[in-house]
Amino acid sequence: MASSSLFSTCTLDKGSFGFKAIGFKKELMCSHLFNKLPAYSRVLTGVRSMKWNQNQHLSRNALKCNALEFENSLSFAVGKKFQLDDVIEAQQFDREVLSSIFDVAREMEKIEKKSPGSQILKGYLMATLFYEPSTRTRLSFESAMKHLGGEVLTTENAREFSSAAKGETLEDTIRTIEGYSDIIVMRHFESGAAKRAAATASIPIINAGDGPGQHPTQALLDVYTIEREIGKLDDIKVGLVGDLANGRTVRSLAYLLAKYQNVKIYFVSPDVVKMKDDIKDYLTSKGVEWEESADLMEVASKCDIVYQTRIQKERFGERIDLYEEARGKYIVNKDVMKVMQKHAVVMHPLPRLDEITVDVDTDPRAAYFRQAKNGLYIRMALLKLLLVGW
Amino acid sequence: MASSSLFSTCTLDKGSFGFKAIGFKKELMCSHLFNKLPAYSRVLTGVRSMKWNQNQHLSRNALKCNALEFENSLSFAVGKKFQLDDVIEAQQFDREVLSSIFDVAREMEKIEKKSPGSQILKGYLMATLFYEPSTRTRLSFESAMKHLGGEVLTTENAREFSSAAKGETLEDTIRTIEGYSDIIVMRHFESGAAKRAAATASIPIINAGDGPGQHPTQALLDVYTIEREIGKLDDIKVGLVGDLANGRTVRSLAYLLAKYQNVKIYFVSPDVVKMKDDIKDYLTSKGVEWEESADLMEVASKCDIVYQTRIQKERFGERIDLYEEARGKYIVNKDVMKVMQKHAVVMHPLPRLDEITVDVDTDPRAAYFRQAKNGLYIRMALLKLLLVGW
Amino acid sequence: MASSSLFSTCTLDKGSFGFKAIGFKKELMCSHLFNKLPAYSRVLTGVRSMKWNQNQHLSRNALKCNALEFENSLSFAVGKKFQLDDVIEAQQFDREVLSSIFDVAREMEKIEKKSPGSQILKGYLMATLFYEPSTRTRLSFESAMKHLGGEVLTTENAREFSSAAKGETLEDTIRTIEGYSDIIVMRHFESGAAKRAAATASIPIINAGDGPGQHPTQALLDVYTIEREIGKLDDIKVGLVGDLANGRTVRSLAYLLAKYQNVKIYFVSPDVVKMKDDIKDYLTSKGVEWEESADLMEVASKCDIVYQTRIQKERFGERIDLYEEARGKYIVNKDVMKVMQKHAVVMHPLPRLDEITVDVDTDPRAAYFRQAKNGLYIRMALLKLLLVGW
Repeated sequence: MASSSLFSTCTLDKGSFGFKAIGFKKELMCSHLFNKLPAYSRVLTGVRSMKWNQNQHLSRNALKCNALEFENSLSFAVGKKFQLDDVIEAQQFDREVLSSIFDVAREMEKIEKKSPGSQILKGYLMATLFYEPSTRTRLSFESAMKHLGGEVLTTENAREFSSAAKGETLEDTIRTIEGYSDIIVMRHFESGAAKRAAATASIPIINAGDGPGQHPTQALLDVYTIEREIGKLDDIKVGLVGDLANGRTVRSLAYLLAKYQNVKIYFVSPDVVKMKDDIKDYLTSKGVEWEESADLMEVASKCDIVYQTRIQKERFGERIDLYEEARGKYIVNKDVMKVMQKHAVVMHPLPRLDEITVDVDTDPRAAYFRQAKNGLYIRMALLKLLLVGW
Repeated sequence: MASSSLFSTCTLDKGSFGFKAIGFKKELMCSHLFNKLPAYSRVLTGVRSMKWNQNQHLSRNALKCNALEFENSLSFAVGKKFQLDDVIEAQQFDREVLSSIFDVAREMEKIEKKSPGSQILKGYLMATLFYEPSTRTRLSFESAMKHLGGEVLTTENAREFSSAAKGETLEDTIRTIEGYSDIIVMRHFESGAAKRAAATASIPIINAGDGPGQHPTQALLDVYTIEREIGKLDDIKVGLVGDLANGRTVRSLAYLLAKYQNVKIYFVSPDVVKMKDDIKDYLTSKGVEWEESADLMEVASKCDIVYQTRIQKERFGERIDLYEEARGKYIVNKDVMKVMQKHAVVMHPLPRLDEITVDVDTDPRAAYFRQAKNGLYIRMALLKLLLVGW
Repeated sequence: MASSSLFSTCTLDKGSFGFKAIGFKKELMCSHLFNKLPAYSRVLTGVRSMKWNQNQHLSRNALKCNALEFENSLSFAVGKKFQLDDVIEAQQFDREVLSSIFDVAREMEKIEKKSPGSQILKGYLMATLFYEPSTRTRLSFESAMKHLGGEVLTTENAREFSSAAKGETLEDTIRTIEGYSDIIVMRHFESGAAKRAAATASIPIINAGDGPGQHPTQALLDVYTIEREIGKLDDIKVGLVGDLANGRTVRSLAYLLAKYQNVKIYFVSPDVVKMKDDIKDYLTSKGVEWEESADLMEVASKCDIVYQTRIQKERFGERIDLYEEARGKYIVNKDVMKVMQKHAVVMHPLPRLDEITVDVDTDPRAAYFRQAKNGLYIRMALLKLLLVGW
């Protein structure tokens, strides 16, 4: 979407993704207030709020128009220069964007604890288009939307139940569903599906996992959890444990941690599921120190975060013997907790089987259920940013 | 539901379906305002608003009672003499009713573009009872309901998951679900199921497709799209292309087009899926000109609408060879677009496979995604009419 | 959750289940009003409202805080001394608690008939976690929640679609879902699952059926229906008919009826599905008179309630012959209705096959669809009590 020439003095700071219609819908309602400005003018308020702030009269009218939209606007009025259009992959976020999103997530923590809650997204409709079932992720997004006053159209199993079964392309499905909703959260079985959807859609797309590819909101909530639990993202030591070959979670996390200063990463995994070279090479290229270790106790005693993952049985096919061997090797239990530092925490993307023993749950350093909860705040933040902007 | 004898001066214009409880629920709340009138009096306001307009005092009280209910009442106050109870089949609508529904649909286009949207149906609950999954249709109805402030109870696959699996009759299911909701949108695998449901239910039923039978909201949105795109429904030429034997869409459309003046219909289809005689005979009996043609280019050059449909593989059983032959025969591509008139449009009920090539999508005359969106407006209009009346 | 020592003068009357966070969420919002009181103080308002009533100033502030929360508070301000934390099994309710819940259910009948309905539960989120599909029960709960202004996160088939398929424990699932919602309604395939969930969760759990175990809301609605239809629960004669061996409904009902005075129960069932000794022994131990009979006509002529049930084919395995024999034996038809007393009613938990003939439906004594509707009121009452208290 091109900006109007009337705003030629206004330099848009766009990311690598397209510029979608934030505020566009609202603009139609309020257009009588802006009758000397082009139709898309409101789109710019989110992007260049400083610009708008110089025009007090218009600003005040806009507030009358829909005050809710400007909730929290004060704390974000300055210095936010980028526009979030879609959430497709962890790589799209740099350090500054992450920091800004985390600021909003913290606001969301406050909102979630209030009752009856926020109405920021009242009148907005989110479609959850899940081609692969994932109750946890779907409910987390739907809870996020409803906590902000928005509404949800839901599909629990779109692959089996939708026109995809009749051979419709993803692009056609997206073009239809975008007519019924304001944002689409999709999970797909094919890597790259979310990017294709975003290229087609005129409304924001959030990737809630596409096959072996990306699951960016999980990556964001992981980093957010580290910051919330440890208080910083620079100068930390992180142990990644378990299935490092197949887990997209640990791969994305390693990628994002490379954006911070003086991070040291330890890989602790059975031989059959070791971290692949692409990530190791990437970390090296970014100057991130890493090492492989077979000694979970030693790593646990040094780290700020022990990030445990599930060995994914489904990746072993008929080699159940290999699976069983790998599965029992590195277990986080009371003994591991004993050597961990007082301020350190255990994380896990869940679901877990027995790679963390249940008796660890009551340890205050067991952060995995808080981590799951953080997913709610991150998703609330993203929905707000994508639908009504900063 | 019989009208009260107090209203003996009031001639009710009922359709062929029963008279259901529009406004009944609201009436209970407001009954103290109407304490000298019988309990069902409010039911009549939608039907005979002119009558009520003579009684200014009561009208004003009623407005205080629930102003939302009377939104848009001005534009529909005069000349609407029928009562919509259920939406079961395309045949139930005559030309005047269609025209009135389209008026409401146009109002809905305006409402949909506003934010935070209408609250006309606040407090109303729609149950989507889908015995056959259809994500597209279901989401379209649910989006419609939510755009009007209503709430939704949803079943994605009632056939497998409900008491039907235990042998409960449809009638018993309806009697239970009507206790939990205000309107039921149902899709069923058996022809005539919606009619049976409507005969049982005391709340409105909308047929969202019953087996090979009817899919009346698709038929309505098709006709609405023609009017929106071409500007008229009389004096038009329509080419129906593709699977004319099995497509209930084209059959319903042919039926509805017969209600208009000077319509010419061209049938363009592979021999194995030709339009059946019942529709041809019906058109002839109504004085509608039609002809069969094997020349898509010639037809496309003459028509106002080229209505393409998917060849339904599932109807060919094991005769994949016949399917493949039929499937490739009539494709709408750039060449077809070149011979079409400037004002003409291409429609398609979706999902499509390759019977319209993707490079046609960017042509402004490609109307099929606008057509899908029109489904939202038609369904909003029907929900409003069935739940709160004109 | 322990009560604060500040309230040492306050004797808590707790049931056998834990003490959960009613009002806790709201409390956070209003905490500035209570800044000299401990954080959990508001939790106690539901439990000891008489205590609070002595502190008029605080009460008034609380009302300002969220007036909706105190809707109906007047009628329940006195004499309610128990706290409802979870709904797990019929046995947890004594006669007084049942009576109080029924009082609230009757309030709910009034609310449901109003439009646009109540907003008592606005801002609250209910998750329906159904490991076994049950459209009827799920929609009834979701309708109840929405009638009170609450929102719903829904899973139609969590067993197949969720992390349970990957081997996650129920406890872990509950710990995750409780982060996204305020109350969980669960149906599970294993007896005792709801109790395990309640032991884990810090939010209320409602058991919507756990395998062959309990289905307490069905038991409550059955007793509520008897009281609504007959006007009393003491001094009644009840005929339990059909599959008494496998039906958890009739077993729970027999259990609850034992709490009332001078109840006589007749068991009428084919030999293969007779009532088991545990219930008979229990009734005897509680001084409840019961007898077995093979004569449905005679029993029907004496009873206030004929409670018919479906013979469950799925319990007969390959012995279809035994099923067919049992199924046809005791049918409630017009002849049975003829011998029934004028004030007596027929109940059935639904779904029915042909154990009640369809021609009985129009008899005003056919109470089974009213009974299904009562499920809505009971569930509304429980949601209110669990989320905002009396």
